[in-house]
Amino acid sequence: MTTLPTPNIAPENVLNNLRETKPESVTIVCLSGDMDKAMAAFIIATGAASMGMRVTMFFTFWGLNMLRRKGSTSNVKDWLRRLFGLLNRGGADTLPLSKFHFLGAGTAMMKKVMKQSKMPGIPELMDIAQDLGVRFIACTTTMGLLGITKDTLIDSVDQYAGVATYLSEAKNGSVNLFI
Amino acid sequence: MTTLPTPNIAPENVLNNLRETKPESVTIVCLSGDMDKAMAAFIIATGAASMGMRVTMFFTFWGLNMLRRKGSTSNVKDWLRRLFGLLNRGGADTLPLSKFHFLGAGTAMMKKVMKQSKMPGIPELMDIAQDLGVRFIACTTTMGLLGITKDTLIDSVDQYAGVATYLSEAKNGSVNLFI
Amino acid sequence: MTTLPTPNIAPENVLNNLRETKPESVTIVCLSGDMDKAMAAFIIATGAASMGMRVTMFFTFWGLNMLRRKGSTSNVKDWLRRLFGLLNRGGADTLPLSKFHFLGAGTAMMKKVMKQSKMPGIPELMDIAQDLGVRFIACTTTMGLLGITKDTLIDSVDQYAGVATYLSEAKNGSVNLFI
Repeated sequence: MTTLPTPNIAPENVLNNLRETKPESVTIVCLSGDMDKAMAAFIIATGAASMGMRVTMFFTFWGLNMLRRKGSTSNVKDWLRRLFGLLNRGGADTLPLSKFHFLGAGTAMMKKVMKQSKMPGIPELMDIAQDLGVRFIACTTTMGLLGITKDTLIDSVDQYAGVATYLSEAKNGSVNLFI
Repeated sequence: MTTLPTPNIAPENVLNNLRETKPESVTIVCLSGDMDKAMAAFIIATGAASMGMRVTMFFTFWGLNMLRRKGSTSNVKDWLRRLFGLLNRGGADTLPLSKFHFLGAGTAMMKKVMKQSKMPGIPELMDIAQDLGVRFIACTTTMGLLGITKDTLIDSVDQYAGVATYLSEAKNGSVNLFI
Repeated sequence: MTTLPTPNIAPENVLNNLRETKPESVTIVCLSGDMDKAMAAFIIATGAASMGMRVTMFFTFWGLNMLRRKGSTSNVKDWLRRLFGLLNRGGADTLPLSKFHFLGAGTAMMKKVMKQSKMPGIPELMDIAQDLGVRFIACTTTMGLLGITKDTLIDSVDQYAGVATYLSEAKNGSVNLFI
């Protein structure tokens, strides 16, 4: 007569297995084009990626500005969207602070402090994020609204997608932020 | 002598069972009354609902403005809260952009682009959300502060509640956003 | 011959065990220094703590202003950061509304309504939060950028830390918000 092995089904073990297999991932919706909020987003993204978490960033509305090539302008036909494209041009290096922008003086001051503190700026943080495997997704719905075409965005965009892609990623995420 | 069935306790199975039974739900706190943020909130809400997720939206502070009947004003007694009610009137169709509002010109431009692109506006997105079963909860605490009474809100508010209701929903949510 | 006990491995039981053992916790990143957003953050934090959830608040950028001693100014050497410290001074009682601030008039009005409604202000909500065991963490990275030194912050800061501390807390959180 053979003895059956006692199955190890203590709840703690099941829990531990789950914790190990649970995909630890972070998703960040970047709607804001403000420098301070972008900095927070990228500090969290690079921090999580360096801790081994899977990180996906979704850029929508003014957040898309970070993905724009420096100085590129929209080449859509209608003037309405072309105007939005113009207002929004500049790229990751030209984001204003959400507070104390003071027509650029406050933002310039903050950049000077960051340089003095050897703190990376948004373009540098974006490079670090890419190196660490953070995925950049550009929201196609708002690209259409704001007159932003693919050829005006930087090469490091990993995917062009909509809300379904975001949700299928976020529903398995452990940390989902809207910034 | 009977043989015992080997119980299927592989961690993957437990995990799969869990994934199937986990209530996939989304909660969104809408504090902002900006058109772009409201649009993002409703695109996520309607997207999630159409993917079969349970969606609850909590409207607080300026977000309550979306729930107001067109043109309705507060009828609270004291002038302070009545003034807030007046400043805040308008309803879902009058939300400004958080950027490039330009005294209304930028927002009007965005609405024109949305119409051209056959993209639904906030009132239409709210109707779609209701049709898909998204639940609207109005925050009673901030209604009091802003002088907003129930009779000035639209009929499609499902519940009037406070933070405890929000938290009991959010703690089981897979995606919880603050917009 | 002994009979083996039938192990109770129904998925529902495993799920229930998990739900019971899952640490119900809330993390809130407070980047904004606006009164309305701070109020929402503290109402959620105190609500969750009173429901027995573990709550951690991370103050970064303008949110650090809430942690400042009344009237304290920065004593860092360089004028750039000292200027940011000056602009940002005031503490929890001087936060402006994100909308309808009107050079202070709208915010004063809101405070008056809150007092009439016997609703606690930000300083009172912070005291309640501390009494309920909510943990306050000040972001050291942005403290450096904004010229904020420890001696200018209130005593109730529980920890000075960076993004790694935030993420290790948030990845186990059931509700993670960015406000």
